[in-house]
Amino acid sequence: MRIQILSIGYELLIGRVVNTNASWLSAEATRRGHTVERIACVGDSESWIGSELDYSITSGAQIIITTGGLGPTFDDITAQAVAKALGRNLVLNEAAFTMVAKKYESLGLPLTPERRKMAELPEGSTPLENPVGTAPGFTLLHKGVRIVCLPGVPEEVKGMFLKHADTFLPQEGELFEQSVRVAGLPESTLAPLIAELVRKNPYVYIKSHPKGSEGESLIEVHVYTVSNNPRVRELCSSVAEKLRAEVVRIGGRVVD
Amino acid sequence: MRIQILSIGYELLIGRVVNTNASWLSAEATRRGHTVERIACVGDSESWIGSELDYSITSGAQIIITTGGLGPTFDDITAQAVAKALGRNLVLNEAAFTMVAKKYESLGLPLTPERRKMAELPEGSTPLENPVGTAPGFTLLHKGVRIVCLPGVPEEVKGMFLKHADTFLPQEGELFEQSVRVAGLPESTLAPLIAELVRKNPYVYIKSHPKGSEGESLIEVHVYTVSNNPRVRELCSSVAEKLRAEVVRIGGRVVD
Repeated sequence: MRIQILSIGYELLIGRVVNTNASWLSAEATRRGHTVERIACVGDSESWIGSELDYSITSGAQIIITTGGLGPTFDDITAQAVAKALGRNLVLNEAAFTMVAKKYESLGLPLTPERRKMAELPEGSTPLENPVGTAPGFTLLHKGVRIVCLPGVPEEVKGMFLKHADTFLPQEGELFEQSVRVAGLPESTLAPLIAELVRKNPYVYIKSHPKGSEGESLIEVHVYTVSNNPRVRELCSSVAEKLRAEVVRIGGRVVD
Repeated sequence: MRIQILSIGYELLIGRVVNTNASWLSAEATRRGHTVERIACVGDSESWIGSELDYSITSGAQIIITTGGLGPTFDDITAQAVAKALGRNLVLNEAAFTMVAKKYESLGLPLTPERRKMAELPEGSTPLENPVGTAPGFTLLHKGVRIVCLPGVPEEVKGMFLKHADTFLPQEGELFEQSVRVAGLPESTLAPLIAELVRKNPYVYIKSHPKGSEGESLIEVHVYTVSNNPRVRELCSSVAEKLRAEVVRIGGRVVD
């Protein structure tokens, strides 16, 4: 499936928070055999969120995962922004309300309007229970696009994703990867060699990550594929093997 | 200035790399008094990069900062993607060529096509010297929008930004911030109090970050403004002070 991630919150735009949610979700989605095509971050703004959803739908996303903006404060507006963008009403979701009410009952706290707000979801949504925090997530299908809204606190994102992902992001293939660490060659010397391997092996992705400098070089080359086909996985291994041999042939070293 | 950041590289989309470049740049831009409105990440793909540039320009960005894709490998295609998106030719930039040639001369390495490629920039670009690595960055003005392309390696992003930022991102104001850490109150109890302060003080941003759970609560409230006006900064301090007093009044504690 083609996935886009939308991270919501001004804290990301002022550099106060590093977007580990997006990288964690990307790694999980990749491991399940899906392709993350795009990640975007915007503030807690109805219009910016709305434009992003439009853009993601137009650019072919099959699943859009949002993080952030589900809590009780005034600027937690994801549910209302999603409702507006999709032309749906924001309604009190009974199942979500039960989750929220139960949580506050167990804490001995009354149900204020701010707490009740966490159960107001776009019409037609299915709430996702939050195994860590209070605010439920939710998911809905809009014109064939699955939209999944998760909270922003990293522990809640992980807890909620792992609890519910099998329903919206079933395992489709598996990431198979090999790492080749190359010393003694500048990245620019390695470049034509990798280009040739990529050209010849369209199912295998190769990406070099320079870890040293062009002078004193250490390059990690990541060779990977996402597939359940054993032949594709064998191909991936053989590409890594070929790369190792070529590196040695042109005077480089393969290190652990 | 209104800024958008575009991070380029498949490694971000498979969760192999956390996008610390975007958060570092956002923090720096904010500290200089600018507003980051949006961050996007796409792969090393001409069409995805092109669509993002269009979107950023259409949505009002005054400065677009890209990271990644300036190196010598086959998938480093940022310069060519930017050229294509803006309808410009990709040309060998003489000043950039001198930078690259000098670097390889000092390393005693020949100028292969892959190395020369790093000096091919969109027509009309000004190269930005790379004080850490090899690939020059570049900047150009397109229909009033300043586009700045930086490398992807974090040390190179930082080195190049700090060396050149005064030219494209001069100090416009300063971030002034106060942190109020609240214990003993769930975020949902704090919510209406913050909403009221926000409503009354449009120049001050207030954002709560839950650090505990709704039961055993620790909330960091970030009160900030970006301005050089001493009165706005005083206002920001007085809002933080008011928040502290209110928290105590409703039974919470302000902790260090």
